[in-house]
Amino acid sequence: MKSELLRQYAKLIAVTGGGIVPGQSVVLRAGLDQPEFVLMLAEECYAAGAGEVEVEWEYQPMERLKNESESVETLGTVKLWQEQKLRYRADTLPVMLYLESADPDGLAGIDQLKRAEAQRRRYAVTKPISDEMENRYQWCIAAVPGVEWARKVFPGLGDAEAVEKLWEAILSCSRALEGDPAENWRRHNAFLQDRCAKLNAMGLVSLEYRASNGTELTVGLIPEAMFLGGSETNPVNNAVYNPNIPSEEVYITPRAGEAEGIVYATRPLAYRGQLIDGFWLRFEHGRVVDCGANRNEEALRALLDMDEGSRMLGECALVPYDSPIRNSGVMFYNTLFDENAACHLALGRGYTSNIRNYGSYSLDELRAMGVNDSMVHEDFMIGCADLSVTGITAGGERIAIFADGGWAF
Amino acid sequence: MKSELLRQYAKLIAVTGGGIVPGQSVVLRAGLDQPEFVLMLAEECYAAGAGEVEVEWEYQPMERLKNESESVETLGTVKLWQEQKLRYRADTLPVMLYLESADPDGLAGIDQLKRAEAQRRRYAVTKPISDEMENRYQWCIAAVPGVEWARKVFPGLGDAEAVEKLWEAILSCSRALEGDPAENWRRHNAFLQDRCAKLNAMGLVSLEYRASNGTELTVGLIPEAMFLGGSETNPVNNAVYNPNIPSEEVYITPRAGEAEGIVYATRPLAYRGQLIDGFWLRFEHGRVVDCGANRNEEALRALLDMDEGSRMLGECALVPYDSPIRNSGVMFYNTLFDENAACHLALGRGYTSNIRNYGSYSLDELRAMGVNDSMVHEDFMIGCADLSVTGITAGGERIAIFADGGWAF
Repeated sequence: MKSELLRQYAKLIAVTGGGIVPGQSVVLRAGLDQPEFVLMLAEECYAAGAGEVEVEWEYQPMERLKNESESVETLGTVKLWQEQKLRYRADTLPVMLYLESADPDGLAGIDQLKRAEAQRRRYAVTKPISDEMENRYQWCIAAVPGVEWARKVFPGLGDAEAVEKLWEAILSCSRALEGDPAENWRRHNAFLQDRCAKLNAMGLVSLEYRASNGTELTVGLIPEAMFLGGSETNPVNNAVYNPNIPSEEVYITPRAGEAEGIVYATRPLAYRGQLIDGFWLRFEHGRVVDCGANRNEEALRALLDMDEGSRMLGECALVPYDSPIRNSGVMFYNTLFDENAACHLALGRGYTSNIRNYGSYSLDELRAMGVNDSMVHEDFMIGCADLSVTGITAGGERIAIFADGGWAF
Repeated sequence: MKSELLRQYAKLIAVTGGGIVPGQSVVLRAGLDQPEFVLMLAEECYAAGAGEVEVEWEYQPMERLKNESESVETLGTVKLWQEQKLRYRADTLPVMLYLESADPDGLAGIDQLKRAEAQRRRYAVTKPISDEMENRYQWCIAAVPGVEWARKVFPGLGDAEAVEKLWEAILSCSRALEGDPAENWRRHNAFLQDRCAKLNAMGLVSLEYRASNGTELTVGLIPEAMFLGGSETNPVNNAVYNPNIPSEEVYITPRAGEAEGIVYATRPLAYRGQLIDGFWLRFEHGRVVDCGANRNEEALRALLDMDEGSRMLGECALVPYDSPIRNSGVMFYNTLFDENAACHLALGRGYTSNIRNYGSYSLDELRAMGVNDSMVHEDFMIGCADLSVTGITAGGERIAIFADGGWAF
């Protein structure tokens, strides 16, 4: 990939994504796949005024080996210094940048129950700290190609060619391949925010999903909730940032405990390094009471069993079926992209930032309104060419939101 | 490089190098150059019984960028959680494995004074903790090829070929290319320890270095000091480990403050990512009072100015000039190898483990005997084809230790 394009993309992540304010610290988490790009991104962070950039490297095969070789006690322990590190971040609120690049299938076949139990144990220690940080820092998830990921997305090509094509797909979907990426994102954010304004004026209390694949689901909404999309604002310093690059979605936090019916996933879910494919979920009183999958049902069940909140919904996102990402024709096997290819829901934690004036409520009050709480937040795709979404108002009025997979207004 | 040979080498590092005791934790610090080998080494650590392996990745270009972009306050700060991490290690004493692979010239041209000042500030926080750990944990430094390093060692070759040749050179010098590496090391350790026994029976009080390049140096020894070489024993758990792979040296801690004369380096010194070449040091009353270098004299002066102890000697090591490493004909530009190619001295901290029954003395008592204290420990090569080393006993007897660059007995 041309160096100027990568440089523009790095700047997009640092400035439009992270919204770095001069003097802020940045934590950059990345795989080992594209160290030169990580360096370029760090340069752009400094250019945007970052006072410090700390890189945390990740290596998925080592994560796999650890899960195979270490006891659940060891895997589930948060050492004191690790807790102090999180505490330091909650106190200093650095910008968090995540560069995804791992093999979507890289953790296939590992002991999911062990992994989940270890995560649960760690979460008991880390949750109070992440709760405290929530909505108070800037963050951005973006992607760079790893070789294994590129092989999976473009099978049959040589490694170098597959990586190059994945770069191209990532940059294209991220609006960073043509024109001025920052300007592209200003226009894109304005469009998403116009959609939100119109939806938020409707006073919806529930959403009804219907599709020919069998999906028939009704999800309750929280009266105080609002649709969000594109850039967000960190209330601590008023910095504007984009949590996801790319992002095509307009999303809302549903009311936990209000979902009835059945929903069919329309794309595989890459969950913790393995693909769950051909799956469905049946909800009663807001909870998943039954499920099935053609592949990796065990992983799906482990996900549902993570905690009390992992069987309930935490997000309803609207994305037209003819989104740029789906139109690219590329199946990314990565949620950051695939979630922006079609309407989706998420199991697990809801975003408190979707509540109007969330800063004036305590976390407990926000949970009591119906914002779901969980250690997980897993998006899964339900959009398809004939999906319809109908909004229902407090007065019982039915408003077409989506028809035939796209915006109905 | 053949996978079986790499596997043997990994096992050599874990078992002969680290001496891992079942249940011990391992911290493995490595560059991004050979992740598959890092994984293999982690596997061998688990196979040796490690309960946990934590990998700390390093990326020299990021270190360079940080030094250029961050303030000396930021670079010099040890955050509380980082201090807690070191504290945790001093309390739990994991095996520390270091895999070197960085470009010997990768930090050339950076602001050395800034870097040194930042190191000094961090050291003020970390020193009490490392003092506490000293001699109480197992550690091993070994090497794997990085591309930039391979290019420098084998200029003119393609990258893949240079890396392959550097693998071969590393494995050969590490006695891991032929036969059973573990058995090779058992024999090698026995040889080195026989040399030590003979030297320690002589009752030497000083060493006299002479060579035709102008070297004329006399270094005082500590009566309680003894020569060591090859494997060491961790007194906490009696684990036997090899701190360096490769290692050809028999070494002793000299008495800080007793060195007179001039010494000429016979190989360039790769110091903090840059090469100091063609240099000499003149000692009076144990301290460097003058120096010169054909290249990077500024870096040499920064080294000498690090602290009170960095102008004094911390090690005298004896290595025959026809060592396997020098005979390989390869100039590695890396101290781990080059220090084992010829006799060398070190500026800076002395090893307290060279003092007989060091466990029965306090650190202050060991310093008072003449074990040098400093934040640095930098080896530099002084061996050459006509180097002679003469040992002088308390009774004034002169014993030939080295003649014409090799053992005289």
